[in-house]
Amino acid sequence: MSSIATQFVRQGKKIVAIGRNYAEHIKELNNTRPKEPFFFLKPTTSYLVSGGNVEIPNGVVAHHEVELGLVIGKGGRDISQDAAESHVAGYALAVDMTARNMQDDVKKKGLPWSAVKGFDTFTPIGTFIPKSSIPDPYDLRLALKINGAVKQDGTTSDMIFRIPRLIEHISSIMTLEEGDLILTGTPSGVGPVAPGDTVECTLAEPSGKILDQLTFTAISRNGGYLFKP
Amino acid sequence: MSSIATQFVRQGKKIVAIGRNYAEHIKELNNTRPKEPFFFLKPTTSYLVSGGNVEIPNGVVAHHEVELGLVIGKGGRDISQDAAESHVAGYALAVDMTARNMQDDVKKKGLPWSAVKGFDTFTPIGTFIPKSSIPDPYDLRLALKINGAVKQDGTTSDMIFRIPRLIEHISSIMTLEEGDLILTGTPSGVGPVAPGDTVECTLAEPSGKILDQLTFTAISRNGGYLFKP
Ligand SMILES: [Mg+2]
Ligand SMILES: [Mg+2]
Ligand SMILES: [Mg+2]
Repeated sequence: MSSIATQFVRQGKKIVAIGRNYAEHIKELNNTRPKEPFFFLKPTTSYLVSGGNVEIPNGVVAHHEVELGLVIGKGGRDISQDAAESHVAGYALAVDMTARNMQDDVKKKGLPWSAVKGFDTFTPIGTFIPKSSIPDPYDLRLALKINGAVKQDGTTSDMIFRIPRLIEHISSIMTLEEGDLILTGTPSGVGPVAPGDTVECTLAEPSGKILDQLTFTAISRNGGYLFKP
Repeated sequence: MSSIATQFVRQGKKIVAIGRNYAEHIKELNNTRPKEPFFFLKPTTSYLVSGGNVEIPNGVVAHHEVELGLVIGKGGRDISQDAAESHVAGYALAVDMTARNMQDDVKKKGLPWSAVKGFDTFTPIGTFIPKSSIPDPYDLRLALKINGAVKQDGTTSDMIFRIPRLIEHISSIMTLEEGDLILTGTPSGVGPVAPGDTVECTLAEPSGKILDQLTFTAISRNGGYLFKP
C-alpha cells in the first residue's frame, strides 16, 4: 500500500496536536481540565524519523511527551463522531517535544505556542501502522524511557476526549486532509531530555505485544535560535 | 513558470504569520512591542482564493488583517539576513482573518492561537506576484475596504522587522520549504467583518499602480464550531 497516508511523514501537510487529554498529565503541570478539546499546529518540518537526533535549542529546556498519532486517510470537514473512524487510515507512535521553559513564558504573555512546539526535530515519529493492526486504540500502552529508566508508562484508556470527539472538533474548525497527523495528547511523566540522552518509546498491546518502537538521541542544536527569558 | 512556489496555494505546506509588526497596529490592540519577531502557524486549508466566501464561525467576531505575503522559492534553515532575499520567489496579497473574541479569550488563558487563526477560509489570498515585479517591498500600499469604506491603508515602510530579519528568525526555529508563505503583519485599522460584507483589498505602488486586488464576501458559517466564551 502506497498512498499519501502511508507516506504521511513526507507528504502530509499538517500536524494537529491535542493538549491536556490525560487527567494525570493535567495535574502534573498544574493546568486546568478543558471543557472541550483544544489543539495547536506543528509544522511537518518538525518530523524526525526513528534513529535520528533531536536537537535541543540553545537556552531551551525540552520535555518529552509520548503520544498516539492518528493518520488521516480520507479528508473531510464537519466529520461526525459516527463517521470519524472511517477517516482514520492508521496510527503512529510519536513524541511531541516541547520547549517547556519557552512555553511557560508564552503562556504568561498570551503568545502563540508555534515556536515552542515547532522546532526542527521536535516530532520524532514511528512507522505507519495500518488501522487493521490495532483493533482497540483505547487499550494501548504508551511508554518512554530515558537512558533505560522508565519516565512515562500510560494507557490510552485514560484519554479524556476520545478519537471520534477529537476528529469532530478539529474538523468543525479546519478541514482535515489525507496525510494529516493528529496527536492525541500525552499521559503523565513528562520531563526534560538533555543532550546525550537516549530516548526509547514503545507502543504495545496489554499482552506485551509490541506494535512499534521509536528511538532517538538528544544533542545540542548547533547555532539556531537562542531562548532568553 | 510552474513550480511549487507559483502553485503555493495548492502545494505549499505551511503558512507562518508574524504578529505585531506595525507600531500603530500594536497600539490599537493595546499590545506590547515585541523585542524579537514572533509568529504563529496557519494551516493551508485556510486559504480562500479571490472571489470566494469567508465563513464567519458561529459566535465569532472575525477581524480583517490585510498583509503582504512572501512566497518561499528556495527552502533552507538558519538562513542569514544576507542570503534571505535569494529564498523569496515572490509575493502575494493576503488577509489574516482572526477570531478576535476567541483570541482575547485564549490570550487570557495562555492557550494556543491555532484555532483562532486557522478556520477554513481565514486566509483569503491573491495571485502569485513574481519577485521581479516588486523592486522595493518596503514601498507598497496595503489597503482594505469594507462595502466601499476604507478601513486599512498602510505602507510596508512601517514594518518593524523587515523581510531578512523575519526569514532569519523563522528559519532559526523551523526549516522553510518551497511554497511556504510568510505573512508579514498588518498595519492599523483592523476591525470586524460581518456576514453580508464585501471586502476589497489592494496592493499598490506609491504611484498608484495596482499590483494585485483581492475580493471576498463574508457569510455565516453553516454548522461547524460554535464559540461560547
Ligand atoms: Mg503534547
Ligand atoms: Mg502546516
Ligand atoms: Mg496578522
